[in-house]
Amino acid sequence: MKIARIVGSTISTIKNRRIMNTKLLICRETDAFGKKELGTSYVAIDLVDAGIGDLVLTCHGSAARQTPVTKETPTDAVIMAVLDHLEVDGEITFRN
Amino acid sequence: MKIARIVGSTISTIKNRRIMNTKLLICRETDAFGKKELGTSYVAIDLVDAGIGDLVLTCHGSAARQTPVTKETPTDAVIMAVLDHLEVDGEITFRN
Amino acid sequence: MKIARIVGSTISTIKNRRIMNTKLLICRETDAFGKKELGTSYVAIDLVDAGIGDLVLTCHGSAARQTPVTKETPTDAVIMAVLDHLEVDGEITFRN
Amino acid sequence: MKIARIVGSTISTIKNRRIMNTKLLICRETDAFGKKELGTSYVAIDLVDAGIGDLVLTCHGSAARQTPVTKETPTDAVIMAVLDHLEVDGEITFRN
Amino acid sequence: MKIARIVGSTISTIKNRRIMNTKLLICRETDAFGKKELGTSYVAIDLVDAGIGDLVLTCHGSAARQTPVTKETPTDAVIMAVLDHLEVDGEITFRN
Repeated sequence: MKIARIVGSTISTIKNRRIMNTKLLICRETDAFGKKELGTSYVAIDLVDAGIGDLVLTCHGSAARQTPVTKETPTDAVIMAVLDHLEVDGEITFRN
Repeated sequence: MKIARIVGSTISTIKNRRIMNTKLLICRETDAFGKKELGTSYVAIDLVDAGIGDLVLTCHGSAARQTPVTKETPTDAVIMAVLDHLEVDGEITFRN
Repeated sequence: MKIARIVGSTISTIKNRRIMNTKLLICRETDAFGKKELGTSYVAIDLVDAGIGDLVLTCHGSAARQTPVTKETPTDAVIMAVLDHLEVDGEITFRN
Repeated sequence: MKIARIVGSTISTIKNRRIMNTKLLICRETDAFGKKELGTSYVAIDLVDAGIGDLVLTCHGSAARQTPVTKETPTDAVIMAVLDHLEVDGEITFRN
Repeated sequence: MKIARIVGSTISTIKNRRIMNTKLLICRETDAFGKKELGTSYVAIDLVDAGIGDLVLTCHGSAARQTPVTKETPTDAVIMAVLDHLEVDGEITFRN
């Protein structure tokens, strides 16, 4: 799973009908501390009612379809947790 | 999913027969804003009748076979949405 | 599989219910010698009761769901072994 | 899918018996134009009787096993089309 | 599939029981010529009784579980062939 910050949203009227009612958010991977945003951005389906600015966990690949919402849909990334707290190298580096 | 711009098309007469009638387009990943094209290019099967220049979402891996067109075909990338609108860091960065 | 050091932990109250009772640890990939930590960090579900500082093996993708704990969960990385000993280029480079 | 040029071949007498009768070719990814060879090389099973020097499409991951030849084999990359023609940014950049 | 050289071995007493009796070797990817070792190292389950120093092919992802030994195990990489001979750009670049 990747630690990422939600930075934006997408709208598309023409899309595969199996993902018609999903919320597609733009995520930017962060470092282990939840601080520095790294270069990579990607779009994930939101499963946990996350909002812009939230620090989240995303999972990728076939893992993204192991939920009732995404089963058998063309989905390769989902937001599956909102992070409250990160502790790295003995220090609390993020608290919501 | 990746945000990408469609930059080209491919023709091949010799190909695996399961993908015989598919449209194979060349995509170039963009940044989260849908503006700057990044280095990576790849080929994806078009599911949404997209055209050259369109900004799209592509999904990858086994996700690409979760549709009637691509089921049980040797496909690892599909175009599954045409983007109308991107909003990043509170600004509209792309509008179709 | 990747060689990684466990560097931290995560807490999240809002998460997909299928992973409710799992321990999500932050891993940092190391080189083959188990010494130098590389740039990449990721979060994995712990299957072997590993602790902070342990050198472990993680596996990724659908492999991560080949266990009773993670079956049919949105999981793309698990810690599946604690390393005791690494031998590289004829030298023991790590011993627990 | 990736655009790649076939640059070589491999021989191995000791191999998993499920891939005993396959042709394993060395591929080097190219840019979108089919011109510049990029750094990455990999080995793929040939499904379309391709030859050294051909520009091809390869697919990766579980997609590679969606054919009678590779089904249930330890294969993660196949050559599934020989490219005749690439058009990028409005120009024909490759013609066989 | 990747071309890699086996550079080391791992021992771990605490590991997922499904991989209890497997041999876990450390592999370092090489270039197409089988000569220069690249940066990336990873651990793979040995299926072909390979030894330290051998040049091998490894396959990744769900492909790694398409064998009796690795079926339904948390495995994402296997060594599935020992290379005898590589020919690249018309020259034999490796012979065992």
